[in-house]
Amino acid sequence: MPVDSPTLALMARKLRRHSLEMTSEAGSGHPTTCMSCAEIVSVLFFDEMRFDPQDPSGADQDVFVLSKGHAAPILWAALREAGAIHDDLLSLRRYGSPLEGHPTPFSPWVRVATGSLGQGLSASAGMAWARKLDRSQGRVYALLGDGESAEGSVWEAAQFASFHALDNLCAIVDMNRLGQSGPTMYQHDLSVYERRFEAFGWKVAVVDGHDVAALRAAFARARSTAGAPFAILARTFKGRGVSFLEDKEGWHGKPVKKGEELQRALAEIGPAEVTIRVEARRYPASAAKAAAAPTLTPEYEPGEEAATREAYGNALAKLAKASPAVVAIDGDTSNSTFSERIKRTAPERYVEGYIAEQNMVGVALGLATEGKIAFASTFACFFTRAYDFIRMAANSKPGHLVLAGSHAGVSIGEDGPSQMALEDLAMMRALTESTVLYPSDAVSAERLVELAARTPGVVYIRTSRPKAKTLYSNDEYFPLGQSKTLRSSRDDAATVVAAGVTVHEALAAHETLLGEGIRTRVIDLYSVKPIDEETLTKAARETKRLVTVEDHSVFGGIGEAVAGVVAGLAPVTRLGIRKMPRSGKPAELLAVHGIDAAGIAAAVRKALGK
Amino acid sequence: MPVDSPTLALMARKLRRHSLEMTSEAGSGHPTTCMSCAEIVSVLFFDEMRFDPQDPSGADQDVFVLSKGHAAPILWAALREAGAIHDDLLSLRRYGSPLEGHPTPFSPWVRVATGSLGQGLSASAGMAWARKLDRSQGRVYALLGDGESAEGSVWEAAQFASFHALDNLCAIVDMNRLGQSGPTMYQHDLSVYERRFEAFGWKVAVVDGHDVAALRAAFARARSTAGAPFAILARTFKGRGVSFLEDKEGWHGKPVKKGEELQRALAEIGPAEVTIRVEARRYPASAAKAAAAPTLTPEYEPGEEAATREAYGNALAKLAKASPAVVAIDGDTSNSTFSERIKRTAPERYVEGYIAEQNMVGVALGLATEGKIAFASTFACFFTRAYDFIRMAANSKPGHLVLAGSHAGVSIGEDGPSQMALEDLAMMRALTESTVLYPSDAVSAERLVELAARTPGVVYIRTSRPKAKTLYSNDEYFPLGQSKTLRSSRDDAATVVAAGVTVHEALAAHETLLGEGIRTRVIDLYSVKPIDEETLTKAARETKRLVTVEDHSVFGGIGEAVAGVVAGLAPVTRLGIRKMPRSGKPAELLAVHGIDAAGIAAAVRKALGK
Repeated sequence: MPVDSPTLALMARKLRRHSLEMTSEAGSGHPTTCMSCAEIVSVLFFDEMRFDPQDPSGADQDVFVLSKGHAAPILWAALREAGAIHDDLLSLRRYGSPLEGHPTPFSPWVRVATGSLGQGLSASAGMAWARKLDRSQGRVYALLGDGESAEGSVWEAAQFASFHALDNLCAIVDMNRLGQSGPTMYQHDLSVYERRFEAFGWKVAVVDGHDVAALRAAFARARSTAGAPFAILARTFKGRGVSFLEDKEGWHGKPVKKGEELQRALAEIGPAEVTIRVEARRYPASAAKAAAAPTLTPEYEPGEEAATREAYGNALAKLAKASPAVVAIDGDTSNSTFSERIKRTAPERYVEGYIAEQNMVGVALGLATEGKIAFASTFACFFTRAYDFIRMAANSKPGHLVLAGSHAGVSIGEDGPSQMALEDLAMMRALTESTVLYPSDAVSAERLVELAARTPGVVYIRTSRPKAKTLYSNDEYFPLGQSKTLRSSRDDAATVVAAGVTVHEALAAHETLLGEGIRTRVIDLYSVKPIDEETLTKAARETKRLVTVEDHSVFGGIGEAVAGVVAGLAPVTRLGIRKMPRSGKPAELLAVHGIDAAGIAAAVRKALGK
Repeated sequence: MPVDSPTLALMARKLRRHSLEMTSEAGSGHPTTCMSCAEIVSVLFFDEMRFDPQDPSGADQDVFVLSKGHAAPILWAALREAGAIHDDLLSLRRYGSPLEGHPTPFSPWVRVATGSLGQGLSASAGMAWARKLDRSQGRVYALLGDGESAEGSVWEAAQFASFHALDNLCAIVDMNRLGQSGPTMYQHDLSVYERRFEAFGWKVAVVDGHDVAALRAAFARARSTAGAPFAILARTFKGRGVSFLEDKEGWHGKPVKKGEELQRALAEIGPAEVTIRVEARRYPASAAKAAAAPTLTPEYEPGEEAATREAYGNALAKLAKASPAVVAIDGDTSNSTFSERIKRTAPERYVEGYIAEQNMVGVALGLATEGKIAFASTFACFFTRAYDFIRMAANSKPGHLVLAGSHAGVSIGEDGPSQMALEDLAMMRALTESTVLYPSDAVSAERLVELAARTPGVVYIRTSRPKAKTLYSNDEYFPLGQSKTLRSSRDDAATVVAAGVTVHEALAAHETLLGEGIRTRVIDLYSVKPIDEETLTKAARETKRLVTVEDHSVFGGIGEAVAGVVAGLAPVTRLGIRKMPRSGKPAELLAVHGIDAAGIAAAVRKALGK
């Protein structure tokens, strides 16, 4: 049953009242940011979107992403009014309430955590692309602010969406003129944004964002537009409806005081006795995909030379063949990361992200919310570009999001420091909830890609540029949180903990030292996080001295991770990169930075006082 | 003496030959990327730019930024032909040669390291803004690729440049149609980019990038355009001039083989017997600024409550008053980071960066290259957005670039995880060359801001949201790489290492434990990097047990840094954030995550087996 515009306007008024009351009760939050988009949210939730308030999965329904995450109160209010949640709205921002200060997956209705601005459109584009892939009909709505449209990532998402003709995607920009510290760049000059969205390939409607009928008409136009995404630029006022808040500076992120001030604000808004029953509306179910585990078998000869990045590509192709859920995106480096190999088995499940790593990760997160096992690949160093997106992706607790970084460390050689990932292990480890894997040969690479695909949340896998000898047999398994002890005896005088390219250096150092009568234990720490505390502790107790060696900064990587485990048990000599590298041959650079076999052997001798 | 177009065309041919020969000799590199921009570089270096080949400072000269850093060979070749450098061009990519694979400051002619795409325009905009501030005349030229224009950061820089009317900035986009793994998004449809640059407020010329006369005319238009930055969109062909390379896929980052293949390529290009003498051309010297040390005196009462973020703002205002070199940029958070306080003493030296953190850091780097002591401020968590820019800034070895992150950790409270920096210490520490400071009270905050302003390179300072009691007297000094031992006795049974908000918790825990007869040493680790190895080692030896406590992820932060120092000497109990936080009151969250006084006391008891 269609709702009439006056009723929707009354609901907008009710949502404004909720937003004010909730934030006043919490004593913090962003009521004015909610008030500017009250009509937009009212029209979306009570008229435009087809969804089932009993089913937060979003399957065969329209879905919503609140990119301007600080407007969380009005999202909770709308969900409550729609019958989708039953939480006490006044629990906003209280510890333990799912009604957090910004949207998080502690509410089942939040597909992606937001609150770091400029990220929602990329995730939405990923959802829209997945729905095109699956030929499912539900549309994707993303609500942005004008302030956040200054983020370049918004334009990366915009170009991705138009390039892929995502006409199932609708962005609404709540142009309320005011940012946090003052007016936005272009204030109410909507023509600037109109030209930009058009230049980025979108169809655009410019409307009065407080005019319910105008919004409804714009949504209708959006729904009937084929071949391009649609942007509704809504001219609004922050704090709309309350004289001392509306269009006033100094009210960002500030609630009105409980008591007299709040009552005055509510009185100005006026009464809003309205209830709108949201009926479950769904699209025809899309064809069910057969569930299948992503599985593979490595096929390498012992001693065969292959780069772990190439093995990554092989694994990706195999997993895609085994499971229809596997999809991949890359940032114009697919011939170097070898993610292009997925095209051999599932070309339709590869999407080119071009050189826009933030959007690449955001899109991959969106894909993950649609049930995909999403792989995003680029040079490991370029994931630094997307660190905020990765942080928010981890906070989104995705089903399966694998980030694969190639060309790690100085072992890439001549391209020099701009292309060398030296901080990636630190940055991926620092996420409170993440998994970090680092293969040393082709077999472990394939097995760890398989493991990554089966591990929930954000998983990072680090591959290397140089070819490496195959160390493991094809039937070797690599459980999460364990390690491989490759050399060991009862007489080990020290333990060398290595990973990736340095495993091979550690094995060579082992031979050198053996010739000198020094026995070393060699551990391949393929699971950097979670880390194998048991094996490391045992090695510290038995061998008394540890040397870690990593093709990565000595700050925040493997060395400190190991030191954190064994502190008190054994001294740890940390070998790694301590100064900005230069161009040079890989072997030359490993030597210069003291992480080659000779450097390891020297460190062991020194640790033993020899 | 003006050079004629045929001579410039001949020089372009010579630069092509150099690029081919250099990369063939090196056995790696990107010759085809150089060949597309040969005419552009020839016209820039031998006609358009006014510079002194004997003076790489760029003062009172035009300056150049190679945003498409993989074209480094042609930059080295042009500098050599211009008489600016005398290095052997065939030393490209050899270890120790300043002619690196991508531009780095190992060459004095490189103002900012490039090679991670999409960053050069922000730095260039920073330089152009500084020159406007100083009323100096030299222009700034940035050469971009079309592939890199997919990076959102390019559009952040574009909007910053037009918003600030930087008509001393000229971007040239080398539209060579081909990326690394295939064609670019829009290939040779230059109208797309034209509409975008226009929508972002630029004046635009579209030219044949291999037509020297057309390029010269476009540069003349750019130079005479007032009030807006100027973009020259140059239609070019990758590998131009060699039939088997030109406009061909599969040749990105691939040299032609030395010997027959190279000779064939050079023969197709033809001879290039040409020399152009570059005369020193400078602008009138701009008014000299009095050199002055950034200095300040804190003025707080003992026990006075002030947030370290507010003290940061106070310090910034004082430093700006003391030194004309101090400038600040913020990302629409200046009323929360308190960077707005600089407006009290030097309003003209504050520039609003709006919500675009990548560009903010890039602009700040550009400011630093112009001799400024540049402060960039935002919420600490949003520096994750700019991590690639920060990495490249560190690689640029700037004079003074201070990044100030506020609202660190769970102590921000109700806003929830999206606004909490939990990874910033790890990410800033991981840079091979960086300084990381973390004040615990208003006095240390001001002193550390002063220290930051005097420390070369990239310096990160982390401030907190809550008010904190003033611990130190105004005349206390905080040398780099040291710490403050706040509680200590000969009978200490354990050492608690804290920083920032947890210092106050550690002091409270000290009192609690004292009441139980347990003496703890308390260390304020204000210099997180470099770290005070001497004091930590002594504490480990004397007290035998360490507890670290940080409002940050337990991975890669203070705890592991300390463990890295004392491994072998003492066990380290690491308290910090181990799971995704939620909204809640600050004290509640410190307790939930075990980093409040009670959590610290419990950890000390446990470490002592009590």
